[in-house]
Amino acid sequence: MLLTFLSLLCLSTYSMSLELKVITVATEETDGFKRFMKSAAYYGISVEIVGMGEEWKGGDIQRYPGGGFKLNLLKPVLEKWRERKDLVVMFVDSYDVIFAANSEKILEKFKDFRTNLVFSAEQFCWPDQSLASRYPKVGLGKRFLCSGGYIGYASQMYSIITDSEISDTDDDQLFYTKIYLDPHKRDKYGMRLDHRSHIFQNLNGAEDEIDLHVTSNESYATNTLYNTRAAILHGNGGSKNFLNFLGNYIPNQYNVDEGCLHCSEGLHELPEDSSKWPTVFVGLFVMSPTPFLREAILKSLSELNYPKNLIHLWVYNKNSYHEDLLSKWSDEVKSEYASVQYTGSYRDITEIEARTTAMKESLSKKSDYYLMLDSTGVFDDPDALRKLITLNKHVIAPILGRPDKYWTNFWGSIAKDGFYARSRDYFVIVESKRKGIWNVPFISTAILFEGEWLLKRSTDAKGLPSFASEEFEPDMALCQWMRNNGHFMYVSNLQKYGHLISTSNYEIHHLHNDIYNIFENRQEWEKKYLHENYSVALNAGPDDISQPCTDVYWFPLLSPAYTKEIIEELEKFGKWSNGENDDPRLDGGYENVPTRDIHMNQVGFEKQWLDILAKYVVPIQIKVFPGYYSRARADLNFVVKYHPQGQPDLRPHHDSSTFTINVALTRPGIDHQGGGCRFVRQNCSVVDTKLGWALMHPGRLTHYHEGLPTTSGTRYIMVSFVDP
Amino acid sequence: MLLTFLSLLCLSTYSMSLELKVITVATEETDGFKRFMKSAAYYGISVEIVGMGEEWKGGDIQRYPGGGFKLNLLKPVLEKWRERKDLVVMFVDSYDVIFAANSEKILEKFKDFRTNLVFSAEQFCWPDQSLASRYPKVGLGKRFLCSGGYIGYASQMYSIITDSEISDTDDDQLFYTKIYLDPHKRDKYGMRLDHRSHIFQNLNGAEDEIDLHVTSNESYATNTLYNTRAAILHGNGGSKNFLNFLGNYIPNQYNVDEGCLHCSEGLHELPEDSSKWPTVFVGLFVMSPTPFLREAILKSLSELNYPKNLIHLWVYNKNSYHEDLLSKWSDEVKSEYASVQYTGSYRDITEIEARTTAMKESLSKKSDYYLMLDSTGVFDDPDALRKLITLNKHVIAPILGRPDKYWTNFWGSIAKDGFYARSRDYFVIVESKRKGIWNVPFISTAILFEGEWLLKRSTDAKGLPSFASEEFEPDMALCQWMRNNGHFMYVSNLQKYGHLISTSNYEIHHLHNDIYNIFENRQEWEKKYLHENYSVALNAGPDDISQPCTDVYWFPLLSPAYTKEIIEELEKFGKWSNGENDDPRLDGGYENVPTRDIHMNQVGFEKQWLDILAKYVVPIQIKVFPGYYSRARADLNFVVKYHPQGQPDLRPHHDSSTFTINVALTRPGIDHQGGGCRFVRQNCSVVDTKLGWALMHPGRLTHYHEGLPTTSGTRYIMVSFVDP
Ligand SMILES: O=C(O)CCC(=O)C(=O)O
Ligand SMILES: O=C(O)CCC(=O)C(=O)O
Ligand SMILES: [Fe+2]
Ligand SMILES: [Fe+2]
Ligand SMILES: [Mn+2]
Ligand SMILES: [Mn+2]
Ligand SMILES: [Mn+2]
Ligand SMILES: [Mn+2]
Repeated sequence: MLLTFLSLLCLSTYSMSLELKVITVATEETDGFKRFMKSAAYYGISVEIVGMGEEWKGGDIQRYPGGGFKLNLLKPVLEKWRERKDLVVMFVDSYDVIFAANSEKILEKFKDFRTNLVFSAEQFCWPDQSLASRYPKVGLGKRFLCSGGYIGYASQMYSIITDSEISDTDDDQLFYTKIYLDPHKRDKYGMRLDHRSHIFQNLNGAEDEIDLHVTSNESYATNTLYNTRAAILHGNGGSKNFLNFLGNYIPNQYNVDEGCLHCSEGLHELPEDSSKWPTVFVGLFVMSPTPFLREAILKSLSELNYPKNLIHLWVYNKNSYHEDLLSKWSDEVKSEYASVQYTGSYRDITEIEARTTAMKESLSKKSDYYLMLDSTGVFDDPDALRKLITLNKHVIAPILGRPDKYWTNFWGSIAKDGFYARSRDYFVIVESKRKGIWNVPFISTAILFEGEWLLKRSTDAKGLPSFASEEFEPDMALCQWMRNNGHFMYVSNLQKYGHLISTSNYEIHHLHNDIYNIFENRQEWEKKYLHENYSVALNAGPDDISQPCTDVYWFPLLSPAYTKEIIEELEKFGKWSNGENDDPRLDGGYENVPTRDIHMNQVGFEKQWLDILAKYVVPIQIKVFPGYYSRARADLNFVVKYHPQGQPDLRPHHDSSTFTINVALTRPGIDHQGGGCRFVRQNCSVVDTKLGWALMHPGRLTHYHEGLPTTSGTRYIMVSFVDP
Repeated sequence: MLLTFLSLLCLSTYSMSLELKVITVATEETDGFKRFMKSAAYYGISVEIVGMGEEWKGGDIQRYPGGGFKLNLLKPVLEKWRERKDLVVMFVDSYDVIFAANSEKILEKFKDFRTNLVFSAEQFCWPDQSLASRYPKVGLGKRFLCSGGYIGYASQMYSIITDSEISDTDDDQLFYTKIYLDPHKRDKYGMRLDHRSHIFQNLNGAEDEIDLHVTSNESYATNTLYNTRAAILHGNGGSKNFLNFLGNYIPNQYNVDEGCLHCSEGLHELPEDSSKWPTVFVGLFVMSPTPFLREAILKSLSELNYPKNLIHLWVYNKNSYHEDLLSKWSDEVKSEYASVQYTGSYRDITEIEARTTAMKESLSKKSDYYLMLDSTGVFDDPDALRKLITLNKHVIAPILGRPDKYWTNFWGSIAKDGFYARSRDYFVIVESKRKGIWNVPFISTAILFEGEWLLKRSTDAKGLPSFASEEFEPDMALCQWMRNNGHFMYVSNLQKYGHLISTSNYEIHHLHNDIYNIFENRQEWEKKYLHENYSVALNAGPDDISQPCTDVYWFPLLSPAYTKEIIEELEKFGKWSNGENDDPRLDGGYENVPTRDIHMNQVGFEKQWLDILAKYVVPIQIKVFPGYYSRARADLNFVVKYHPQGQPDLRPHHDSSTFTINVALTRPGIDHQGGGCRFVRQNCSVVDTKLGWALMHPGRLTHYHEGLPTTSGTRYIMVSFVDP
């Protein structure tokens, strides 16, 4: 013991002149390896790479023991350095490691250990659990040795690696563990564990201990349990995704002041002349009935600022619901694109087959890019495709989200069961509070693959990305394949590229299903069904809303598509009431001033209509009747059908409403003659009603009113008694 | 039998020359006797009166057998006539009998019997029930003999009355019954019973058989069971009141075309010179707390068009509630009346004592009339007293009723238990569809006694009318005494004299109790608490209701008495809310725009206020907002107190109402400076509010409004949110 103590003391006197050499074993330049090297370069650390290009002989160390091969590759190098007293050698893995400090810092931390060899520590005893009890107890800190990172004097390093023989498929961690558990050897080699992650932070099982600090000029990770900031971040075991998350920030990838620091590196700018742009193979997958298919996806595809003759279109439609539209559309656009292929719903092809086929087709067309696009992904920026290409990633997706929701096409993290988990930065990324290109464990809906990368895969032993999985749907299967094979997947939110269409709750039993789809896809709904001048009214001052009679207001609310489709929907339903006082649809069973009508709840449109009231009518109401906060409750919402041979008019009455909405669904002078609403007490009539415009008037007390006779044609109005 | 038959036959040949003599026994000229004689006179029938002025010796025949005295009085007269073959003699009672046909008719009916003697029949076997089974059976008709009326040839009549001796106190009916039940004697005297009331209608037990027909030119009674119309109506046994009822019509007392035929007979017109009018002693009885005492009774007494120096006022107040008012008032008017005596609530005098004392005081003052007046009787016609005197009845009351109710101060009939029963003409009399002077079994509240009649009673063996009874309250005891002693009580509805104040449900725990008394005494309430110009507004056209701002109306609603008293009531209660949002009085516990107020339900005034809304506000509302039928429901009714140091104003808001009522309880410029209501959207203020005027405006949507700052003094408003 006395001897050891002395030797430690005298070694410390050399500290000023020590040198650090990092050595790693890597047989392939994986995405992880490249990230490792980039982090080393950032800190000016030179790395001795051993085994590059050689065939890996260390077994499947993701799942089983092994790695003796690593040691055998290291031995010759260490032998060269064994005499250098000033040399400190650090071994680290590279596929799952990031540097977080420079050599000086590392050496300083090493010297603080005042020993010869420091091994990283972790909380699992691996690969031989039975050895756990033989480990010395530690107060605060991880107890067990991990061979993914260690540091020591070159001579001691050589001594220990040659302590005994190891075969390529033996386990390297077990080799060192056995030495460590022998108190004599531990002493002899001056071997200690980095229990509290002074140098090495093994992330497996330690995720909760780690804080990521994103500050104005740097981002770094600390261990909050030990109050340490490690120099090496190691995504050992199941912590690869967590390392990827940290790798989006460290070292110097992102900080608050400068944002994403790597996002402008290595861009693939396209030439001015668009005819020289890369070719793109677009696989369009319509897996389930998709609202607003024509207005959203098809339109956004058509409107991309990308030469169509450079695009191959490959359309797969799984659902007969869209058969007519898609087969027709495919035909229509055939001449515009480099090629168009349509696989219809009648074909008995699985999703896996379809996605695999499309990818292969892309390869066979030698396309520069393959865009795998689902029918729910909409590009709002016509330059989205070009801009994605520019980002120059093997596999990347634009972040697309459901408007005003946190539902997007990527996951920031993944749970143990393989399903969604929220990463710490998911919300700030979705909210675009942090913009960048992010390495994430799951992407979908609109994935751009580099053609060259795909080609490499096709020649690779692992083969092309796979969509098949026993547990998962094709989209998750693909990402699982990517993760398992060490391929990074990126999403970009450097800008807004587009959004997602929601297929949830899409009812297809109506005649016009999209008119019902207000809740899930409001943006599309508004574009199609709101009156084009509604926003003018919304932004107008109260005095600019026209007032044809005292306290009666008038504004554009619904589009011609709406008025047409709702009439067709109701006429298809067809059960117009008989206009009699007894009305079983009503709570009291009796209506004093009955109309021939259909109630919105008879055609399942009530929730939608109430939403129209709340979202579009109330904002106008509050403008012209300030201070009145309507709850947009309305128990009676109906379309009246006026016809000279049916019900031509409606006698004077009050409505059971605080205010009434009366929307013209037809045009006086064109669809019908006569009609209109007369306010008796004001002696004021509104007869020149305008298609889709809503009349808004107090229902009780002041506005006694009548429906004027329709003398020919049919007049339809949509009426709603809002109360309160 | 053969002999009898022959004699009958030969008698009938004399019919043309027969004469009728009516004989009766009467010792006093009771009201009933006078009525009897009047009816005889009407038919030109001469009556032989026997016993007048003699002392009755026949026992108490109302309750016990007796009446042999009658027969002994008749004998000498019949003896005179015994030889006259052409003479038919009819005996009838007189106190309880009315003629309903003339002699010819009576004789004709008698001859139709083709026998010598016809006795009236009744359905009770009296006085010896055990004889019932010995009576011959009759098919349809009454089986038993009644000696209250019989008719026969003078000779037979004499024979039968002298068939055997009878003592004065033996029963006359038993005397004739025994003869009738002896078949030999029955035959011998040619004795038959008038089973089906051809001549005699005994009313006891037969009331349901009798129809009173009031036709355009006559009134008459028929027996609907036997289809007969008797010549004699006899109120035997307990049917005296029913006879009195019939006597109001028969003979020729009332018909449809001419109305009351006796009402203009024997009037006591007063001279022009009112100083020569009779003196009246008024006993005013305040038995229980009486709403509107000052405004109704006291005022109506003061305003009588009758010289006050001819009136003695005797006031009895049983209740401390009115002590202040009555003692003060008695003092005030002392100098105006001939005399005023006040007996206050502190005196330990029973009602019986009080009423008896007053009657005696009237006698001792030698008053020409005594008016016994309860505090609930109000004269609306100032000439009522004079007009009642003119009617010249011993005992009479004006009909007074609760307005729009069937509750009056008389009963048309009386039930077996002595309490109220409805007569057949009660409703038409109360509704004044039949006007007249009616003989009824119960009167109260305002009874005018003739002084002379009272004087006669005071010297009479029966004494003064009594208010004492074991079963009944003094008012019913009095009437029972009157009925039992054969004194008729009249009510007049020849005109409307006044009405009754209701003391039901009168709450006296408030500061101002009358303001709460809207339901029981609406007429008084309206006079005191409705604005004097309310009726002008009610009768105005819609355009004449002023409209200070668009759809805001303004009209006089409540009187200065109302505004003053409600404020005092609330200030006495004192629990003004603190003006904070949290308000435990509300359903939701929260008020967005709170005021410092007291809710009407906190002072028990909610039902009343809702009635004001329904009865007085809604009729104006429907005029200016036609077609809107409000249910006058209002969950929030409150008085707001504005004060510079408390709540000076109210920020802009809407009310939770279809329309709002806002009544000024104070006067701007006098009670306070500032204040008023501003309609923000209309940019229109109502600041010159008028005391008791109601502002009516839509509550929601169109009329965003605020309470303007009260800069000095206190502004109170009464607010009500009507919905719907
Ligand atoms: O015909 C109109 O515009 C009036 C319809 C109406 O008042 C109603 O349906 O309640
Ligand atoms: O002060 C006023 O007249 C307005 C009162 C008012 O609006 C309210 O109490 O709701
Ligand atoms: Fe209407
Ligand atoms: Fe208000
Ligand atoms: Mn590793
Ligand atoms: Mn549906
Ligand atoms: Mn009698
Ligand atoms: Mn009360």
